[in-house]
Amino acid sequence: MPRTTDVSSSPVRDLLALTSRPEVISFAGGLPAPELFDVDGLRAAFDRALSRRSLQYAPTEGDPDLRAHVATRMTGRGLPTTAADLLVTTGSQQALTLVVTALLEPGSVVAVEEPTYLAALQAFRLAGARIVPVAGDEHGMDPAALADVIAREQPELLYLVPTFANPTGRTLSAARRAEIAAIADRHDLWVVEDDPYSELRYRGDELPALASMSPKVLHLGSFSKIGAPGLRLGWLRAPAGLLRALVIVKQAADLHTSTIDQAAAAAYLDAHDLTAHVRSLRDAYRERRDAMIAALPTTVPDGTRWSDPDGGMFVWLTLPDGTDTADLLPEALARDVAYVPGAPFYATTPDRATMRLSFTTNTVGEIAEGMRRLATVMR
Amino acid sequence: MPRTTDVSSSPVRDLLALTSRPEVISFAGGLPAPELFDVDGLRAAFDRALSRRSLQYAPTEGDPDLRAHVATRMTGRGLPTTAADLLVTTGSQQALTLVVTALLEPGSVVAVEEPTYLAALQAFRLAGARIVPVAGDEHGMDPAALADVIAREQPELLYLVPTFANPTGRTLSAARRAEIAAIADRHDLWVVEDDPYSELRYRGDELPALASMSPKVLHLGSFSKIGAPGLRLGWLRAPAGLLRALVIVKQAADLHTSTIDQAAAAAYLDAHDLTAHVRSLRDAYRERRDAMIAALPTTVPDGTRWSDPDGGMFVWLTLPDGTDTADLLPEALARDVAYVPGAPFYATTPDRATMRLSFTTNTVGEIAEGMRRLATVMR
Repeated sequence: MPRTTDVSSSPVRDLLALTSRPEVISFAGGLPAPELFDVDGLRAAFDRALSRRSLQYAPTEGDPDLRAHVATRMTGRGLPTTAADLLVTTGSQQALTLVVTALLEPGSVVAVEEPTYLAALQAFRLAGARIVPVAGDEHGMDPAALADVIAREQPELLYLVPTFANPTGRTLSAARRAEIAAIADRHDLWVVEDDPYSELRYRGDELPALASMSPKVLHLGSFSKIGAPGLRLGWLRAPAGLLRALVIVKQAADLHTSTIDQAAAAAYLDAHDLTAHVRSLRDAYRERRDAMIAALPTTVPDGTRWSDPDGGMFVWLTLPDGTDTADLLPEALARDVAYVPGAPFYATTPDRATMRLSFTTNTVGEIAEGMRRLATVMR
Repeated sequence: MPRTTDVSSSPVRDLLALTSRPEVISFAGGLPAPELFDVDGLRAAFDRALSRRSLQYAPTEGDPDLRAHVATRMTGRGLPTTAADLLVTTGSQQALTLVVTALLEPGSVVAVEEPTYLAALQAFRLAGARIVPVAGDEHGMDPAALADVIAREQPELLYLVPTFANPTGRTLSAARRAEIAAIADRHDLWVVEDDPYSELRYRGDELPALASMSPKVLHLGSFSKIGAPGLRLGWLRAPAGLLRALVIVKQAADLHTSTIDQAAAAAYLDAHDLTAHVRSLRDAYRERRDAMIAALPTTVPDGTRWSDPDGGMFVWLTLPDGTDTADLLPEALARDVAYVPGAPFYATTPDRATMRLSFTTNTVGEIAEGMRRLATVMR
């Protein structure tokens, strides 16, 4: 197994296992709130969509109606897009792996924020890529640091979650977006803009997508956080030449994404105002975010720092020096509360005093109780 | 794009495009008959399965109920299997690509039948593997030829469709199965038994799965031909050590297969007798197979040879010397009938006088009319 020998375990899987006991209040998983799923709307959509046609093989590019709906929504949000620019994928995780397969080979260099989404790190490692971090701060990646890394390492790909990043919750500022897009153009560098969270904004104004600033930016979107992750529906927006290559890679990967799930999503978008549904998600998640942030001062030890995200799902904590959050986890689980230690999100040397809390999965009441439990462990 | 530069086009996609005009009677695609889908049963299954849980993220390995159902069916068909032996995949195409990712690297050698399934060839080429054909005849791969190839080429993997092969319709004999399993054991060679068709048997007795004879055989199954391909549901049976590695690769590929499609398939298997449904498919497809075989003598030129498959979806034809079936295709399409020229199914030098006809997609009446159209082109 040449390609898997350096992957001894799978952090996401191990983490999801933490959340399985029903008595645990889990801040670990990046799960949307199931009670906010539009179960009735989706049930009706599946019923309408189910037909001989939606049970048959289908084109690799994806359902034309679904691509048209997604293109219209993206254009409406400031990223001009046609159906022909889009490839439907089996979740945006697949979009990332298709890009990896098309653009990287063993020894290729990938530049990333650090910390960053750990399943992206796993995908880069499986491909045998070398991962190089680029320094940043609370406003996201530092363009000057990126320029240095490009000069020194000649990366084939830059991977970013520019808006409400996983795990930090940070957002790349508008000025830095323009600078990074210009750098990508100048150096002919492919950039992945992984964008599952940007519709979940709780305050402040929307920022332009990085992909609206450069044709070198591949934009990855998903229904997982605004619809339902169980449908495994994502999409990828790319220039025509690369999109053709990605369609060939997608065909080898799974021929096409579930015909019925795509048809149901298209039927849902025909009949429902997804933007209104997203507004209701925002209202609920904003309260949960605020509840978690409000509880933090009495939950964590003095000297702890945390992010104050404008959107998304995550708060990122850095405990006082010398703390290893992995050491505290067994005690937290013993008290029926879970979080994710920060180390797996690092490509290089981890800061073991970090940890990630998700505020979307639990109600305000559960967050209050979970934070009380966490306080008994941490303070 | 280092991994895609040698893949200039995608034969399966080009072929599917042939079938899109409604007036064409297509023998080209490997599509199951849509009028035989159990639309009402699947609609009810989706309705029962739809819930907050079936819309959420799920374990990478797959739905426990679905895996238990599949294991029971496989065990009942003579391949002892538990749910823990199985990984649910997004169609069996994904299972193949996961195996490729886990076991091959650029320069690895894959041994295959020739001709063989072209999307498998595409997956091996995308991985940068070198494909080596093993000689065979109407009883399938020749074990002595396999032993020679192993001695000469040291392949990492052997890929086989042992039962009702795509494109030839051929079935590996029981005696050769035992010999090939013994060779795999002796040489510690991984074997993929791609098995989407074996339940579609129209005459003769079932043969034991290759995987029942050696732990080196990975068995790939699918709902696409016995249920509905639009659900993209397949599975992979592998020994525990390799299965763990494949789960990691699967997680990077798409986290997991659609939760709702898996739950609906499990609900369908709870409520329906899939084996009885398969019996009705067999009865319909047997008539179609017989109709196509009966029409062949008056459709093709004298001197044409064809396979006489005991099951599956395909008849394989070899026209008299000097014919290139690709040259005849434009004329066939002009007369509103489609087939697949045989060349893309070859890993090495193609026999351009070959072609594939699928008999499952069309009714007996459509087959008769399509063969009449084909006769005007071929005779």
